[in-house]
Amino acid sequence: MTAAAPVRPAATLAGHPADRLLDAFDRVGAPVCVGLDPVAERLPAELRSLSAAEAIERFSLGVIEAIRSHVACVKLQSACYERLGVDGVGVLHRVALAAKEAGLEVILDAKRGDIGISAEHYAAASALHQADWTTVSPYLGADGITPFLRANGNASMGAFALVRTSNPSGDALQSLRLVDGRTIAEAVADLVATIGGSTGATSAGQIGSRGFSSLGAVVGATKRQDAAALRVRMPQQIFLVPGYGAQGGGVDDVLPCFRPDGRGAIVTASRSVIYPQASDTAGDWRTPIERAAAAFRGEIRAGLGLS
Amino acid sequence: MTAAAPVRPAATLAGHPADRLLDAFDRVGAPVCVGLDPVAERLPAELRSLSAAEAIERFSLGVIEAIRSHVACVKLQSACYERLGVDGVGVLHRVALAAKEAGLEVILDAKRGDIGISAEHYAAASALHQADWTTVSPYLGADGITPFLRANGNASMGAFALVRTSNPSGDALQSLRLVDGRTIAEAVADLVATIGGSTGATSAGQIGSRGFSSLGAVVGATKRQDAAALRVRMPQQIFLVPGYGAQGGGVDDVLPCFRPDGRGAIVTASRSVIYPQASDTAGDWRTPIERAAAAFRGEIRAGLGLS
Repeated sequence: MTAAAPVRPAATLAGHPADRLLDAFDRVGAPVCVGLDPVAERLPAELRSLSAAEAIERFSLGVIEAIRSHVACVKLQSACYERLGVDGVGVLHRVALAAKEAGLEVILDAKRGDIGISAEHYAAASALHQADWTTVSPYLGADGITPFLRANGNASMGAFALVRTSNPSGDALQSLRLVDGRTIAEAVADLVATIGGSTGATSAGQIGSRGFSSLGAVVGATKRQDAAALRVRMPQQIFLVPGYGAQGGGVDDVLPCFRPDGRGAIVTASRSVIYPQASDTAGDWRTPIERAAAAFRGEIRAGLGLS
Repeated sequence: MTAAAPVRPAATLAGHPADRLLDAFDRVGAPVCVGLDPVAERLPAELRSLSAAEAIERFSLGVIEAIRSHVACVKLQSACYERLGVDGVGVLHRVALAAKEAGLEVILDAKRGDIGISAEHYAAASALHQADWTTVSPYLGADGITPFLRANGNASMGAFALVRTSNPSGDALQSLRLVDGRTIAEAVADLVATIGGSTGATSAGQIGSRGFSSLGAVVGATKRQDAAALRVRMPQQIFLVPGYGAQGGGVDDVLPCFRPDGRGAIVTASRSVIYPQASDTAGDWRTPIERAAAAFRGEIRAGLGLS
């Protein structure tokens, strides 16, 4: 089992989001993130007698405690909380704040996709939860993305735009080829690189001191061939790579998402960490989750040649 | 001023969503919808001393009362409520239920864009609010859309997928041309027609008894030329057409969204109705809103040759 990384003090949303994220990776020694997608049916037995909102809150807070020494970042699946209505949004809020208190960077996986003042509202909602990053849809162009890069009038928040997703039907659109030879996903990648670049008129200051943009890209872990081509098109984007572990992506699949210097991607495992196969079911339900988080970190470190 | 349409009793989510919507249009005599996008700065003076959540709730409920005799449908911009966090989601819930009580069809304009169980969660969240329809993003393909067509295990809810949007930067992606000659928006239209069609393996029963699908399409009112081409590609989709009035679209712009029989589109006005230029500022703030809703209905009826 890999030794635990040091815990940092509670963060505030100051500075550049990409700098914060890379610093966090350095601190824990691996660019790893746990996806928190709690669903009632898969919660530990002892939580199942609680109300759905209470159970998901207790579970989420327990997962944060279990993983905080091993990973830099948590990705909160907004849908899992929103499905419980007002109560669920309250849980989401408290869980996000607890993750910040625990020293984790917080990605709100909300895949918002609106424009203008509505996009600003969504960005403000993310800021209420102190989310460092929000996932967004690219279909509306820059109008749907830039409001998330300057939420609250500063550049402390970032966004990950969907570029290439792992789901089977994503190909139906993302793989179509344009007259100029690019796929739609590649065209979106170019758009993201432009919006998130340092030279565009609307994007001054998006590149942080460590060379990465406050606009990153979601690139599924099972799209290995595509990932290498997208890496070239988006040299300054941090890739958020979901799908490690349970969704079928392994270490080899995520390596093309990194730059040659081993930076530039964040690997996210969800179900394989938060719902581990526990060999010992008698103990604390958080113990197998902590072990799975540590193992996940170790696998990625080994894959990147860091240990 | 056009005579008020009869008010129908509170609806439940039974039957086919497209049938319900067309019946509602017939009842009020025009396919019109008001977009409720409340922002604190534009509320009537007498509401501004309240808390933001209270003000937006009072305003939204007042708008519903003012418009209910003139339009069939209200589109709630989820972002405007979500930006107020837990309190805002509570307001959204109560406003949606009040709209149902007032006999209006409710479109939750949330533009959700996730897949699998997360999409199911979002659909369940819409169902909590008794929304008849939810707007969704097409970038993830069918995986991001079909869960909204069978929420709660039945076919009583529908979805409108973004196809062609009015915002300036929407062109950056939606107008790109594929090797087969289609634009991306047209490829999305074909995808929507297939997913929402009656013959696909995953879409049995999506077509209602009045010939329209439970999967509709968002087509901006300022994309007149595109609208005609998209209408041909999506003969069974109801077009949700935002952008009437304040956003620059007029009657002539929305006509190509209709089929030759004058059906198949729903025209949405937001700011031009809910923030009318009141000539008489001394009276009830809801009176100019009611007048604007009636005028909007009259304009669309005249444009369609119905009066």
